[in-house]
Amino acid sequence: MSATRFLSGITPSGTPHLGNYAGMIRPAIRASKAPGVESYYFLSDYHALIKAQDPERVHRSTLEIAATWLAAGLNPEHVTFYRQSALPEIPELTWLLTCVTGKGLLNRAHAYKASVDKNVEAGRETDDGVTAGLFMYPVLMAADILIFNAQKVPVGRDQIQHIEMARDIASSFNHLYGEHFTLPEAVIEESVATLAGLDGRKMSKSYDNTIPLFTPRDQLKKLVGSIVTDSRMPGEPKEVEGSALFQMYQAFALPEETEAMRKAYAEGIAWGDAKQMLYECIDREVTPMRATYDDLMANPEKVEAALAIGEERAKAHAATFLKDLRNAVGLRRLSAPAVRKAAKETKAALPSFKQYREADGKFYFKLVAADGRLLLQSTGFTAPKDAGQAIAQLQKQGSAALAAIAPHLVPVPGIGPGDVENALQALLDAAA
Amino acid sequence: MSATRFLSGITPSGTPHLGNYAGMIRPAIRASKAPGVESYYFLSDYHALIKAQDPERVHRSTLEIAATWLAAGLNPEHVTFYRQSALPEIPELTWLLTCVTGKGLLNRAHAYKASVDKNVEAGRETDDGVTAGLFMYPVLMAADILIFNAQKVPVGRDQIQHIEMARDIASSFNHLYGEHFTLPEAVIEESVATLAGLDGRKMSKSYDNTIPLFTPRDQLKKLVGSIVTDSRMPGEPKEVEGSALFQMYQAFALPEETEAMRKAYAEGIAWGDAKQMLYECIDREVTPMRATYDDLMANPEKVEAALAIGEERAKAHAATFLKDLRNAVGLRRLSAPAVRKAAKETKAALPSFKQYREADGKFYFKLVAADGRLLLQSTGFTAPKDAGQAIAQLQKQGSAALAAIAPHLVPVPGIGPGDVENALQALLDAAA
Repeated sequence: MSATRFLSGITPSGTPHLGNYAGMIRPAIRASKAPGVESYYFLSDYHALIKAQDPERVHRSTLEIAATWLAAGLNPEHVTFYRQSALPEIPELTWLLTCVTGKGLLNRAHAYKASVDKNVEAGRETDDGVTAGLFMYPVLMAADILIFNAQKVPVGRDQIQHIEMARDIASSFNHLYGEHFTLPEAVIEESVATLAGLDGRKMSKSYDNTIPLFTPRDQLKKLVGSIVTDSRMPGEPKEVEGSALFQMYQAFALPEETEAMRKAYAEGIAWGDAKQMLYECIDREVTPMRATYDDLMANPEKVEAALAIGEERAKAHAATFLKDLRNAVGLRRLSAPAVRKAAKETKAALPSFKQYREADGKFYFKLVAADGRLLLQSTGFTAPKDAGQAIAQLQKQGSAALAAIAPHLVPVPGIGPGDVENALQALLDAAA
Repeated sequence: MSATRFLSGITPSGTPHLGNYAGMIRPAIRASKAPGVESYYFLSDYHALIKAQDPERVHRSTLEIAATWLAAGLNPEHVTFYRQSALPEIPELTWLLTCVTGKGLLNRAHAYKASVDKNVEAGRETDDGVTAGLFMYPVLMAADILIFNAQKVPVGRDQIQHIEMARDIASSFNHLYGEHFTLPEAVIEESVATLAGLDGRKMSKSYDNTIPLFTPRDQLKKLVGSIVTDSRMPGEPKEVEGSALFQMYQAFALPEETEAMRKAYAEGIAWGDAKQMLYECIDREVTPMRATYDDLMANPEKVEAALAIGEERAKAHAATFLKDLRNAVGLRRLSAPAVRKAAKETKAALPSFKQYREADGKFYFKLVAADGRLLLQSTGFTAPKDAGQAIAQLQKQGSAALAAIAPHLVPVPGIGPGDVENALQALLDAAA
């Protein structure tokens, strides 16, 4: 059995902190070592250009983040670790995909719609300050995933829609030009640990409450010392529940150490002592990595060399695959023979049902025309089974099932009952 | 003095006919031979993918059109003749430009708006059937032009807006990352000869009235014989005005031959004789080319080889230039030193005036924010001087000039008077 291909993008912006490390970097590196897993981790620097129009920041940040992942133990021989911009095949594929993507699909992207809503609220023009980059980002992301035919894409809930869009785009391409793309699946990261920051809120740059991962030791000690605690005195029993300090200790300590700390809390350990123990525990994990990090930052060619391993491998794959795709769309040597006629010339362009899960945790379905136009949109079902049954009913009975399913449908602007009936009939005819 | 760089795209669709030849191919090849001219002619096959989703047609059409231009005398040593898809640097640049293009700019593209209007009229969803490719086409076209910093782009009136958009996009990039792009200028092809077809209407595939350029001789004779004439008998004087036959003769004959034909018309030449003369005249020009064309079509490797000359040259330029551009946006070797801070960090993002001519022949200006948002839009002026004076007044007096200029302005949705006042004040401050 071949390995399952996982792909993750890392946006090169900002300086990594302990929260990034415990919440994403360390688990991703561990996951890459699991058997049967083939990992593609990339620095999304083309993507970074949408927001970061400061070239020095993009450059510096790419170096810092790459050095961080390498220092944290990413093995570039094992993980395919690369910069997005090392593969100009990605923007080329983006163009091929752009030509098969309905603009309506992009209009419905959450991130774009959020920008529009903000503008409308503020009484501005709907697209005020929106770049074409933000609007087109889902197509770039589809190209990121599809260029490697990645099967699994670990994402947060807010990114589920992007995977769904990548699937839609891949389906359109496959429909027109033959089965070239695997439809990727989102792997929802339910249990991502978020560390609390110095003030007890989630550790985040925007709260200015972070401990940078590779801050010098004396600074680390000072920052750990400034973690907010309650005012219980030494000897008074302390609560582990809600204690940012305990939570952070747990993220870096061995299980038996965590148990010992829990006991120490109950027995009234002094906050100063607990902080000293936390500092030592973090320092034990970070210090060896810091030496590597400092060395890599001082010698960027070493980072280049590490990236070159993955980039060479990724490039070889991407270049070969893109040649196939160019061939499929008709961009070939003039002397090349005609390839088998694409299936679509005999196959009528059929609508299709899509079933998916949204950020609210509910299960939805929709009926989408071959050109990407939305025809039917369901409300959220609690169980995936119920969404599946509604689809099956529509597939079997066509528009006769519409009345029964109507309570689970929301109106789709610009789509009349005739459009839906024709689409359902076309599906029935094709199945007959 | 260095040569002026002209760039023209040729969409690879359909089989060239006499109208294409006389109206575009022959004049373009002649223009390429003018002194002081550096010509870039390319087959826009990435562009073709927006509409033509039949790979065989894209492939076949690319061969036919390339063979036609070569047979018609394009010298690939002299003209840089290439396929767009030979330069993956173009879609890569498209992405870089996408990140600096306001979505609002693309919303206002005529071609996109025409599709939306059609949908609205038919009561469909605004973006029904519109692909992201159609929407993003102006950015691809900007990349086509800017990758070579072409100075002049010969276009029909309907394409003027695309050049204006390429200028806007280039300005945004230059503003953020330094002066990398020359702002291209549209060269309006006022005097493009359009041939009449068999039925007297404009020769066009959509009227099914064409004479294919490389139709076999007997077929050519038959088609010329079928050109519609009036019913005047031999000996009756004939009108050259409005005679499709005379116009076609003029397009292929020497001036003295045309004069002789004019006299023959007045003297009552029989239609049959006139048609025979036209056939001979076209045949004289086409037959030597047809031999070359047939040879090229039978040996596609020869066309590949001819394209390889231009593609190698174009590639060398595009690859070097794109490296500079990648460097400018921050995509560089990690060990590369920081480049000079981009000018924008000290320069505030300023709005700018744009003056341009529209398809109606009138002169317009607009004020555009640094992010591409439209702030002011003028009505059409008959003289460019008047548009220039209005701009000068706004530049010197700021919002104090608005009342006087108000009759020449049209309302811009979503823009309030405060936005305009602030923008004009920022320009005054910067000029102070």
